[in-house]
Amino acid sequence: MQFEPHPTPRFPAGFTTAARNCGLKPKGDDLAIFVSDVDAAAAAVFTRNQFPGAPIILGRETIRAGRLRAIVANSKYANVATGSHAVDDARRMAAAAAAEIGTSPEHVLVSSTGVIGVRLPIEKIERGLQGMTAELQSDPLVGARGIMTTDTHPKALSVSVGDATITWVAKGSGMIEPNMATMLTYIFTDAEFDAPMLDFMLREAVEVSFNMLSVDSDTSTSDTCAILANGRAGKVDAESFRAALTAGSIRMAEMLARDGEGATRLLRVTIHSAKSTSEARRIAKSVVNSPLIKTMAHGADPNVGRILMAVGKCFDATLAPGRTDAWVCGHAVLHNGQRVEFDDAEIRAVLAGDTVDIEIAIGVGTGEATAFGCDLTSGYIAENAAYYSS
Amino acid sequence: MQFEPHPTPRFPAGFTTAARNCGLKPKGDDLAIFVSDVDAAAAAVFTRNQFPGAPIILGRETIRAGRLRAIVANSKYANVATGSHAVDDARRMAAAAAAEIGTSPEHVLVSSTGVIGVRLPIEKIERGLQGMTAELQSDPLVGARGIMTTDTHPKALSVSVGDATITWVAKGSGMIEPNMATMLTYIFTDAEFDAPMLDFMLREAVEVSFNMLSVDSDTSTSDTCAILANGRAGKVDAESFRAALTAGSIRMAEMLARDGEGATRLLRVTIHSAKSTSEARRIAKSVVNSPLIKTMAHGADPNVGRILMAVGKCFDATLAPGRTDAWVCGHAVLHNGQRVEFDDAEIRAVLAGDTVDIEIAIGVGTGEATAFGCDLTSGYIAENAAYYSS
Repeated sequence: MQFEPHPTPRFPAGFTTAARNCGLKPKGDDLAIFVSDVDAAAAAVFTRNQFPGAPIILGRETIRAGRLRAIVANSKYANVATGSHAVDDARRMAAAAAAEIGTSPEHVLVSSTGVIGVRLPIEKIERGLQGMTAELQSDPLVGARGIMTTDTHPKALSVSVGDATITWVAKGSGMIEPNMATMLTYIFTDAEFDAPMLDFMLREAVEVSFNMLSVDSDTSTSDTCAILANGRAGKVDAESFRAALTAGSIRMAEMLARDGEGATRLLRVTIHSAKSTSEARRIAKSVVNSPLIKTMAHGADPNVGRILMAVGKCFDATLAPGRTDAWVCGHAVLHNGQRVEFDDAEIRAVLAGDTVDIEIAIGVGTGEATAFGCDLTSGYIAENAAYYSS
Repeated sequence: MQFEPHPTPRFPAGFTTAARNCGLKPKGDDLAIFVSDVDAAAAAVFTRNQFPGAPIILGRETIRAGRLRAIVANSKYANVATGSHAVDDARRMAAAAAAEIGTSPEHVLVSSTGVIGVRLPIEKIERGLQGMTAELQSDPLVGARGIMTTDTHPKALSVSVGDATITWVAKGSGMIEPNMATMLTYIFTDAEFDAPMLDFMLREAVEVSFNMLSVDSDTSTSDTCAILANGRAGKVDAESFRAALTAGSIRMAEMLARDGEGATRLLRVTIHSAKSTSEARRIAKSVVNSPLIKTMAHGADPNVGRILMAVGKCFDATLAPGRTDAWVCGHAVLHNGQRVEFDDAEIRAVLAGDTVDIEIAIGVGTGEATAFGCDLTSGYIAENAAYYSS
């Protein structure tokens, strides 16, 4: 579908946000709230990592009721592997936000991202939340800025669907191969849907967007993707809404990939004619995660043998080496499993562009999938070799 | 077992090698032969990549007879995805080596590694092989040097078992997650074993050594591990031989990991008390391949939350978060799934050492496994972003 986001992202009716520095980081916002002025139907998906953070454990419980008034999120500390008080700290964070907003803690979703294994300075967060409702405002970028960690810029996106609006606010640039959700993506809408329908549409959208996103194949312990629908704009056409929700989630996944730690370009890998959708997804992930493909995209070197290697290492996929074709940004580079003669300078030029599109036809079926990633650079190494642990 | 290699690697009786520049590279050896003066019983394992190079296709056919006189290998070109003449070129290479040595082409194993998709300059190789037998010598490092690509130094290792000797000659520093063998490892012995027994012992050794080695999770299209036993030293105790073969293969896997592209240290991950050996292997691979663990080893930063993350992202493994313990070079860092208070400077110091040992106890069974890898550095990026494709 044609996806036409607003030139400047804005909130749907009834949503506001505020962000503050509460002393977790030496400077910059480290605490954000997102508030709906009425209870909203809600759904969420969380990380599949088997060591989930305390906010994930609490969030799974909270989301069961399918209703949210607010989201509160801090950066700097993930509240993961922090001992027996971890879930209590998350509850205290929900309670403090609820008291400030005037709702009950069960209607507040909590997110914490940052360092693992260091106890959350919960008193600072509790103090920081006091008076934040007075600062609520209508620019989603304010909240987006409040949840950033190593992101280089805040990420928000909005689109109209009939009379309603959908707004995405997200963060995340490392430890990203969600398999359930990106690090944090919050989606707000004033369209009217009940929680089960939201849950269905969210899972459908996440499957082809955030679950196909990988910056470094590492799955965070804190990934959360939540949607809140406050109904202020009434009912809208469900098909249009689903299409817009999926298209916008793909666009946001691309924004996150493009801002992956150290990344200089978006790497998009599309698999055609695989045996099945699940095989197409697996092959797309194998290619998008391959360090040799990622460094190829970084170096802008048309070393196309690496494409074959990254497909071929899917040991259990059905492949037909003699029928494999591949294109880089629309230029044929492999045909029937052999390297095609191509203009080296031409491929070098497209590889150096803002987006590197690799398309591969497997030639054995009708399965299709696209995965989103980024190039691998010295910036990633520098950022993660130095990332301060405590 | 105690593994005590010879201070300087040497060949078993009856094996020699020669290396030359035949014009594939501007300088340095690019062609090597390894010769047994009599027919040797032989076994080999090859890459599981589904786009195997022509030498692999031919090698699978050759090894069926279980007899070899020689191995011929070139660097610079992999002879993969090079069209219909690829296997013919590999056969011509075997025939040229056989003519020079005085044997039949079916007794010559061929390896080619380097760039994918560019046709092998077979005439240069044929010319280069002429007269090479006159240069055969007894230093395995000569052949090891002849098969190098991005390795920073030649790799050979030898050990005595009774009256016999086992010698490993290997290369490989990128595109390494063999799952069958490292890029190229040749093992020579003068012990007497038949081909089926060699095959059994080779697979047993490879399983815990080269198949647990990963520099970058990328599986080459050319991986080969072969063993030749010419019987010149007669029979030796099979149990001692098996133990030495496995111990030496582990040592060689560590040598390859330590010299991984851009690597500055060996990363060794041992999993204890997993549900099964196969789960232990999977978790060990997940940790050793995690970019965030690899950059942590590079940065010498004790960001131990990443250990939990890398274990937890094994979605299908049986874990008990509350029973997970971990140690870095013998220092406890996680206990019962929580970060242990430790001396930051102490962990920083051991992480900066030559070998980073991460041990993790899963606490659910008796499965054990060790995986071998290396840190991830800007050197890897520089090497692979620039690696020339044609």
